[in-house]
Amino acid sequence: MPVKSQLRLPAELVDDLVAANRALARLNVVDAFGHVSLRDPRHPHRYLMSRSVAPESVTAADIVLYDLDSQTVDPRDDGKLHYRERFIHGEIYKARPDVNAVVHSHSPTVVPFTVTRAKLRPLLHNAGFLGLGVPLFEIRKTAGDGTDLMILTPQLGQALARKLGPDAAVVLMRGHGDSVVGPSLPNAVFRAYYTEINARQQLAAITIGGPINFLSRAEALTANAAMLRASARPWALWRQRALNED
Amino acid sequence: MPVKSQLRLPAELVDDLVAANRALARLNVVDAFGHVSLRDPRHPHRYLMSRSVAPESVTAADIVLYDLDSQTVDPRDDGKLHYRERFIHGEIYKARPDVNAVVHSHSPTVVPFTVTRAKLRPLLHNAGFLGLGVPLFEIRKTAGDGTDLMILTPQLGQALARKLGPDAAVVLMRGHGDSVVGPSLPNAVFRAYYTEINARQQLAAITIGGPINFLSRAEALTANAAMLRASARPWALWRQRALNED
Amino acid sequence: MPVKSQLRLPAELVDDLVAANRALARLNVVDAFGHVSLRDPRHPHRYLMSRSVAPESVTAADIVLYDLDSQTVDPRDDGKLHYRERFIHGEIYKARPDVNAVVHSHSPTVVPFTVTRAKLRPLLHNAGFLGLGVPLFEIRKTAGDGTDLMILTPQLGQALARKLGPDAAVVLMRGHGDSVVGPSLPNAVFRAYYTEINARQQLAAITIGGPINFLSRAEALTANAAMLRASARPWALWRQRALNED
Amino acid sequence: MPVKSQLRLPAELVDDLVAANRALARLNVVDAFGHVSLRDPRHPHRYLMSRSVAPESVTAADIVLYDLDSQTVDPRDDGKLHYRERFIHGEIYKARPDVNAVVHSHSPTVVPFTVTRAKLRPLLHNAGFLGLGVPLFEIRKTAGDGTDLMILTPQLGQALARKLGPDAAVVLMRGHGDSVVGPSLPNAVFRAYYTEINARQQLAAITIGGPINFLSRAEALTANAAMLRASARPWALWRQRALNED
Repeated sequence: MPVKSQLRLPAELVDDLVAANRALARLNVVDAFGHVSLRDPRHPHRYLMSRSVAPESVTAADIVLYDLDSQTVDPRDDGKLHYRERFIHGEIYKARPDVNAVVHSHSPTVVPFTVTRAKLRPLLHNAGFLGLGVPLFEIRKTAGDGTDLMILTPQLGQALARKLGPDAAVVLMRGHGDSVVGPSLPNAVFRAYYTEINARQQLAAITIGGPINFLSRAEALTANAAMLRASARPWALWRQRALNED
Repeated sequence: MPVKSQLRLPAELVDDLVAANRALARLNVVDAFGHVSLRDPRHPHRYLMSRSVAPESVTAADIVLYDLDSQTVDPRDDGKLHYRERFIHGEIYKARPDVNAVVHSHSPTVVPFTVTRAKLRPLLHNAGFLGLGVPLFEIRKTAGDGTDLMILTPQLGQALARKLGPDAAVVLMRGHGDSVVGPSLPNAVFRAYYTEINARQQLAAITIGGPINFLSRAEALTANAAMLRASARPWALWRQRALNED
Repeated sequence: MPVKSQLRLPAELVDDLVAANRALARLNVVDAFGHVSLRDPRHPHRYLMSRSVAPESVTAADIVLYDLDSQTVDPRDDGKLHYRERFIHGEIYKARPDVNAVVHSHSPTVVPFTVTRAKLRPLLHNAGFLGLGVPLFEIRKTAGDGTDLMILTPQLGQALARKLGPDAAVVLMRGHGDSVVGPSLPNAVFRAYYTEINARQQLAAITIGGPINFLSRAEALTANAAMLRASARPWALWRQRALNED
Repeated sequence: MPVKSQLRLPAELVDDLVAANRALARLNVVDAFGHVSLRDPRHPHRYLMSRSVAPESVTAADIVLYDLDSQTVDPRDDGKLHYRERFIHGEIYKARPDVNAVVHSHSPTVVPFTVTRAKLRPLLHNAGFLGLGVPLFEIRKTAGDGTDLMILTPQLGQALARKLGPDAAVVLMRGHGDSVVGPSLPNAVFRAYYTEINARQQLAAITIGGPINFLSRAEALTANAAMLRASARPWALWRQRALNED
């Protein structure tokens, strides 16, 4: 039974992923849509993600193991309904070996920055990772006019991953939302949350008017490195609150 | 007793309608005002709606069956207080055979778009249905100056239904709110929620400034078709949360 | 014991006032400050109000009976801490026999309209009462520069009541908040809430830009009359939620 | 055991500090970051603060006693993880003998005022303390470009305390948040909350447009004095809610 044992998912990883889903709902980054994945640390060519349910409803029983082509690994999962946009996750894991977690959301204050010309830039030190670049994926350039803006094919997932590029933590998706990546699940959740917070604060700064004193590139890089470590404190809170809410 | 059995409302339909009321309150689309109706699938010339109570208080015992002239079908309901604006629902069902559910609300961020000249247009793919047109009902043109802006007569309901037209999913009501329709209750709730979300995001995009990259007409239509299917996921969440909150 | 029986407060009135306090906290009209009063229907030269506690903490035991000079009527209340600004209430009841309830708050989106030149005007039919005028009380004109902006004396209460005038439902208080009056407690709570809602929607309409299609004077008056009746529906919800929250 | 008894923290002080942490989380002044401290009234060269956990998670067991160099006084605490920015607190207590409590936060609507040129000024009487000046700490001037914007050394804490100066209640920290001080813990919490509220209302006033009628200097000083007394009412509410939420 080596195959079967490979498929048994470690309980702590599953709990982490359940917590990440619910935490992002509590933090208003995801609503009834959005999904979070985690690369399997035992088999880096696989990732864990929920079957297609709303993030705040996810339980351990919903977590599925996918290969990087976003096909279920466990034949018992074949009858489940899967997120149609799961190629976002698989194709980013292929392209970015440094990435171990991906959050896709319709982050409400990020969406307006996907349809306007102002650049989303870091003004809060927690969002220093935005200094790694915030590319915009315009699906019309890849798939032409008339799509539903969703990433429904491996090819669109690859195009999104190319737009994300080798360095960025966030790729904006026009008229849709964003995809946020990190070296760990706590850090990807942290980045998804602070992308939304920075967007809200940048919107307020635009309302106040005049030039905005964004983080310099050097500050952004230093702050990003600091926040890779500091993600642990919010994660401890968010995980506990998410798992205790039932 | 064939008549009596016709009047007994199927429990699942009633639960759906109770859930829709409470869900829209939780989603901040309705406050203490607003109402939701569902065409009776057994008798398409009838619809179900709550008697006059605040949406978040609606229970199964409050649901009443109306004919399309918005008169109660069951004589036992004659003593109940009914929504004075129920003609919104009955007249739309008459004019739009494709519509099976109607949400009327004072959706808070939609109201400002009813009193200004900017057009509410889809910028988020979930709100692609706004690409079907968002006509504005100006009650002064129908009933003159000096009304309380409410749809208190069959004639005003008919005028509103005419303004909605054959295609649109949303009709704005100046200084009042909107009425949102759909082929199913989950989809009408979905559209009412994303009309509010798109309004918030369009407001933010206006604050950011510059041209807004709205969905093209082709994208709006494709996204609308996709969301007719995708409404099921949020509905599952919203229904469960609404019915379990007691 | 005729005197003592006069002082025994009717339980239903007390519950209404407790509910109004808590409801306004839940509706985010008051925070830890703000107060609500009710004219005693048995003795119109007296009013009921809580002793000095935060509105969301008010219980039946906190309700005190005052005369229109804002002195406690019951000698057993002499040791209690009273709201220092209770003259707002007593002096308005003296000046406005039509008023039976007063809400004073730092309504968060109303405050910005007290320090800018834009007039708060009705754009939502629920706020038609704003068409009765929204005068601004500038305390510097009465008490000179250097006050703490609070209504700490009978004289300031009288000046505020004069500024409110014979018709208005709302008087803005510069840098401070507003005082809202109504013929009944449900209606005063309704008006306090929809003053805040209209302020939020007017702020959004200003952001959208261009001329705002406010309610005409005739519409405002008709809508105000309709809402005097319609206040009952939200009140039923708010009262129930407020009294059941313990 | 005189030393040991000195280290035993009075339960009421500890409860106050726990309540302050949780209250500021409920008030959305702090998120998973931010910290609150209280000068030890028995030993003014010491202060109490939580070990490094998210404010809303703080319990009595987390409270640590520090000297003004921000070193733990109790050797049993040596293994705990401490807030890396605790020098904010120690250095302000050294420089400002009048200060008995400090709140550091990433107050969400204050941050935009740290990266723009508009001055945060009091427009609400509760925020009169802003009239004592709102200096901006620009870390680039002290530590050059390329920091993570955090106060990680005694020297940076001293520079921040110098920028706060002898009078101000609030010092803004560019791209980071603010630090708010008061003569008592209830007052520091009050000021941290109303700094955020005033920022929101000033943002709204900027949106409305035109000149803003801020509090005059004389009004700000009088209001500040009044609010030093009035802090007790919100504190009673916030403390009770915070300690009863478990």
